Amino acid sequence: MSVQKPSIPQGTRDFGPAVVARRNYIFGVIRRVFEKFGYAPLETPTLENLSVLTGKYGDEGDQLLFKVLNSGNFLKKQKGEVIKEEVTPADLLAGPRAVLPKVAEKGLRYDLTVPFARYVVMNRGTLVFPFKRYQIQPVWRADRPQRGRYREFYQCDADVVGTASLLCEAEIVLMMSEVLTKLGLTEHTIKINHRRVLGAFYQALGGEGTEVDLFTAIDKLDKIGREGVKKELAERGFSAEAIDKLFDLLNVAGSFEEKLERLLAAFVTAGVEPDTAGADGYKGLQDLQQVLSYLRGFGFEQWANLEFDVTLARGLSYYTGCIFEIKINNVNMGSVSGGGRYDNLTGAFGLPGVSGVGFSFGVDRLYDCLEELNLFPEAVNSTSRCLLANFDAESEVAVLPVLARLRAEGLAAELYPESGKLGRQFKYADGKGIPYVLLQGPEERAAGRFKLKTMATGQEQTLTLEEVLAVIRA
Amino acid sequence: MSVQKPSIPQGTRDFGPAVVARRNYIFGVIRRVFEKFGYAPLETPTLENLSVLTGKYGDEGDQLLFKVLNSGNFLKKQKGEVIKEEVTPADLLAGPRAVLPKVAEKGLRYDLTVPFARYVVMNRGTLVFPFKRYQIQPVWRADRPQRGRYREFYQCDADVVGTASLLCEAEIVLMMSEVLTKLGLTEHTIKINHRRVLGAFYQALGGEGTEVDLFTAIDKLDKIGREGVKKELAERGFSAEAIDKLFDLLNVAGSFEEKLERLLAAFVTAGVEPDTAGADGYKGLQDLQQVLSYLRGFGFEQWANLEFDVTLARGLSYYTGCIFEIKINNVNMGSVSGGGRYDNLTGAFGLPGVSGVGFSFGVDRLYDCLEELNLFPEAVNSTSRCLLANFDAESEVAVLPVLARLRAEGLAAELYPESGKLGRQFKYADGKGIPYVLLQGPEERAAGRFKLKTMATGQEQTLTLEEVLAVIRA
Repeated sequence: MSVQKPSIPQGTRDFGPAVVARRNYIFGVIRRVFEKFGYAPLETPTLENLSVLTGKYGDEGDQLLFKVLNSGNFLKKQKGEVIKEEVTPADLLAGPRAVLPKVAEKGLRYDLTVPFARYVVMNRGTLVFPFKRYQIQPVWRADRPQRGRYREFYQCDADVVGTASLLCEAEIVLMMSEVLTKLGLTEHTIKINHRRVLGAFYQALGGEGTEVDLFTAIDKLDKIGREGVKKELAERGFSAEAIDKLFDLLNVAGSFEEKLERLLAAFVTAGVEPDTAGADGYKGLQDLQQVLSYLRGFGFEQWANLEFDVTLARGLSYYTGCIFEIKINNVNMGSVSGGGRYDNLTGAFGLPGVSGVGFSFGVDRLYDCLEELNLFPEAVNSTSRCLLANFDAESEVAVLPVLARLRAEGLAAELYPESGKLGRQFKYADGKGIPYVLLQGPEERAAGRFKLKTMATGQEQTLTLEEVLAVIRA
Repeated sequence: MSVQKPSIPQGTRDFGPAVVARRNYIFGVIRRVFEKFGYAPLETPTLENLSVLTGKYGDEGDQLLFKVLNSGNFLKKQKGEVIKEEVTPADLLAGPRAVLPKVAEKGLRYDLTVPFARYVVMNRGTLVFPFKRYQIQPVWRADRPQRGRYREFYQCDADVVGTASLLCEAEIVLMMSEVLTKLGLTEHTIKINHRRVLGAFYQALGGEGTEVDLFTAIDKLDKIGREGVKKELAERGFSAEAIDKLFDLLNVAGSFEEKLERLLAAFVTAGVEPDTAGADGYKGLQDLQQVLSYLRGFGFEQWANLEFDVTLARGLSYYTGCIFEIKINNVNMGSVSGGGRYDNLTGAFGLPGVSGVGFSFGVDRLYDCLEELNLFPEAVNSTSRCLLANFDAESEVAVLPVLARLRAEGLAAELYPESGKLGRQFKYADGKGIPYVLLQGPEERAAGRFKLKTMATGQEQTLTLEEVLAVIRA
């Protein structure tokens, strides 16, 4: 074996003990809230067949899929493998599109939604519907790495499929609110909108341009501002009059309920049609009203954190009903969560007409927010409560029962594995963030006592074992 | 999008809610024990550079690595990528070994040991030594899938590097014992041996054949029996006399301590030399004696579960000191855990002389043992404690505060999202394994009472909310 300087791939990360503990804290909060609302955990394989993944994320997404080489002699047909043909020099000249299907059949999970849809379709005969599942797993994207964007990152999704009930939307608001509150991120805004409200906007403008152009432009409001959006819409064939109308609608002000009333009036004035598939603005307003009623029924109180944001569009995704997004107000960062209702998640796998609604937390962003606001509880770590110093061979043997006792009490504890050099042992405790060091030299042993050093203060106390336990437990 | 019948890759698995809950139970027990002994969590990326992985697992291992295609145009040289040359038709003819380095630079994690070694070397400047880490993550191997062998599976490793103290070996026995006891797997045998004891066996035979041949043959005792091993050794050039001598040694009987004494006498008789690098049998016996002393100091009591098994070899792995393995006695299955001490884990990455010791649990096998012995606690599930039936629109609104109350008490609960059809709602509770269903029809509502149905017995009680809470909490 030749000696090499090791490295990890671009856009990937090692998580050391302190970071793992903090990430697990976030996962734990999210998991407990999901489970309290009746969502059950699902885990799907890292490797999915490319036939499942390809074509689900648009052309750009297909490019960003990590593809895994077939094992063995991936260039040639072989027994038991599904490779149909050998790679030929002609394929090579034709490029990756010709070679790829012959050398790679599997890819890495790109999100948690497509595997979820696949799972539902494969298990539709045995699943109990409505099926409520949450899923906390990493995904991989061959994106160009940059600050805050990784090639391997975790998603935390919760979805329910098989019901159109707006109770689910209301509970999503409750779950979002509870997770953020539990994490101490009290300065947040949960934004809600409805795709049909946006559809009605399009109708209200008089059918100019295309709906996709309109949504795309609105989606950019945050980035390019009002003037930018106006310019873009004008370039895409919307008249000045239509653009003015649009901004009248986007400017609707007031409380959640007042906005609902004002938009209703505006839709009537503009002649927005009811019963239009996917664009019935009245149905959109009714849905939002119903979500509001459910929240009242639940005794929801964080109204200041909930905003009916008519400019929320959630990109060109597959949403068809309510849509959600969370911003942390006191941190300069994109949304930490988003989601919405979709009508045809499983259609691509041959199971049409399954309505569902779901949302996802971005753990990396939540982590950065908690760190920036100094919100990680001090107790969040995975380190021992106490290090037993290893004075000499005799004391080493003498403290073994003490170590056993600490652990029997459920306290994480360790004995420094080599005797001598107390300075190095204190440095070890310090480096690992162990709050207490317990010493028993010959003198203390003779007296049946221990010296306990509190690392944060440097304070040393001479105590009985029971007194030590009381301090360490606290 | 064309409709397709979805599937998952061979050797991979979806884990539904019930299985995830049971797996998490096992992970939780292992994690808590590791942390109680001062081991801290580490997580490394799924993708490693092939330069890190290749050559670490032998030729066969290299074949079993899952390789990931470079992104973008993987056939051609491009900006920002490390591809040195384009794939040529000549490469194609030359086969995978010529093509692979040009199209794939990354692979999937194959075990947790090599990434750990890489991490230690990359972070040696900031880590506090001895460094104790545990790691619970999936690994991938392009093995031929078969019953009980998967292409994606979890490993649970704990290792400490940077100390030669045998305290670590003793604590490994304690951790193994505690995990198995906590899981209810009381009928287990923790086998311990020492590579230097095996090395002394080789010396005692008089230096015939090769040491590797000897270890390989001993390792097969379980599979091919004594006669098989004797035959294999004879074929590999060991004399009948040497083979007899070996079996005298392998037949050593008695308690742990008695075996140590008897082997010591046998080594002296056979003229085994002390101070032989890596093969000093006396040092091996001393180490085991020291582990025994530590265990006594800790008050270890499960002596019937600990066996000094001189036939334990742990294959051709990199171990140099104590080695471990666990068998579950009342389940017909291979070992559920194994490990040992190694002297040069990080040498391949330019950091020689780092001694360490570690072990690993196989979660799939533990799972199968618990299932076969019916040892999963009933409370291990991730399902709601209570389903609130959705009687009609009016009752739906009325029970929302009850649902909020249950959750505020920390109880997982859900309201069936659609009203009507109580039969379907009971079926839902049954399918999800929800133990209680709470109903409030008009009559109960008028009386301020609830009907609580216990699904397991079918019993229905009419109760106040406080009484309901008392039952559900229990």
